[in-house]
Amino acid sequence: MSGRRLYELAGADPARRFSPYCWRARMALAHKGLEAEAVPWRFTDSAAIAFSGQNKVPVLVDGSQVVSDSWNIACYLEDRYPDRRSLFQGGREATRFTVAWADTALNPALVRLIVSDIPSLLDEPARAYFVESREKRFGMALPQLAEAREAALPAFQAALAPLRAVLKDQAFLGGASPDYGDYAVFGSFQWARVVSSLELLLEGDRVADWRDRMLDLFNGLARATPARGED
Amino acid sequence: MSGRRLYELAGADPARRFSPYCWRARMALAHKGLEAEAVPWRFTDSAAIAFSGQNKVPVLVDGSQVVSDSWNIACYLEDRYPDRRSLFQGGREATRFTVAWADTALNPALVRLIVSDIPSLLDEPARAYFVESREKRFGMALPQLAEAREAALPAFQAALAPLRAVLKDQAFLGGASPDYGDYAVFGSFQWARVVSSLELLLEGDRVADWRDRMLDLFNGLARATPARGED
Repeated sequence: MSGRRLYELAGADPARRFSPYCWRARMALAHKGLEAEAVPWRFTDSAAIAFSGQNKVPVLVDGSQVVSDSWNIACYLEDRYPDRRSLFQGGREATRFTVAWADTALNPALVRLIVSDIPSLLDEPARAYFVESREKRFGMALPQLAEAREAALPAFQAALAPLRAVLKDQAFLGGASPDYGDYAVFGSFQWARVVSSLELLLEGDRVADWRDRMLDLFNGLARATPARGED
Repeated sequence: MSGRRLYELAGADPARRFSPYCWRARMALAHKGLEAEAVPWRFTDSAAIAFSGQNKVPVLVDGSQVVSDSWNIACYLEDRYPDRRSLFQGGREATRFTVAWADTALNPALVRLIVSDIPSLLDEPARAYFVESREKRFGMALPQLAEAREAALPAFQAALAPLRAVLKDQAFLGGASPDYGDYAVFGSFQWARVVSSLELLLEGDRVADWRDRMLDLFNGLARATPARGED
């Protein structure tokens, strides 16, 4: 083993890894051709990652280095392994906008569609923590969010217009091959796929074709985690 | 003179250049250090640009080359003048997402806030064409759009979150210095500035600070066109 470890958010089933930010780190490691032992982590396991000086995953341990935050992990991997295929084909400054869009536009819209499916994946005490913190964040009960989601789907699909426009002319956001911009956006779709059986995309949407290409990468790394309802 | 010409959308006053896409081309030329005679063009002057094989501006004439569409112009300038400072510091593939966001998210939100201010800048027959085509597009009279705009401002400002996130860590979307991603987004703000006295941004918003930096570029090239209400 490499001795490298990635702490990833998991459900009661340790194989159900569902954080969009952890998927960014997992795909970035694969892009660099690096192995890392997957360590399942639950929302209330603060003690298990206290060594990182903060209480969120992903956390990457690489030899003596401890790196938290998905963006920091991507930059760390790029700087630490400069001879391997670059995560930022366009430079990290130019990729920032794509990542920022996933953080501030895509994920806030997506979470309202899928958050109500998450508690049933969790055991106590993570479930109680999750429901309480999310109901406080959204100002309503999670079942109420679930009721509103079908009506919210068309607006969500419309908000994917920038993705759709880029994918008209190139196979990946990074160009002919994927890079960190793709992983940042894909993390969100993988999150949705793993926690919810709600289909986000209409048939024939080229965003769905891109998602399929992303699921195929690295010998089907992301596809190996079953979609919700298919396990 | 260079013999280079850029056909730009203008109001009745030929100095009032207001197309977001023409501003992208104008800023791209300046970035490359290239001069181009500005040729004012109005919505109904199809005959004046018929030589380009289509009926929209910007149109760039550079020697024997005729290039239309702002993205095509940027790519043309990059390929034709490779020894001058690159328009795509991160490569054109990585910049596409930022451009696509401006095209498909920013401009559709912005046009509803400012479109009602445009007819008073136009002479006939451009004004009649503009009002009829836009009222058809939006399914309502332009004064109705004007009445709704103050209420729509907070949602517009929230939709700028990706910009705000990137500008937290870097001065320009391109990094430490601006590139075509900046010009694509700035074109929209310049469009709004030239046609409308509606203030889009709250004081203290770092997007406003970035807009100021963009107005300062190239010896105040964009600032030289007065803001609406300041001329």
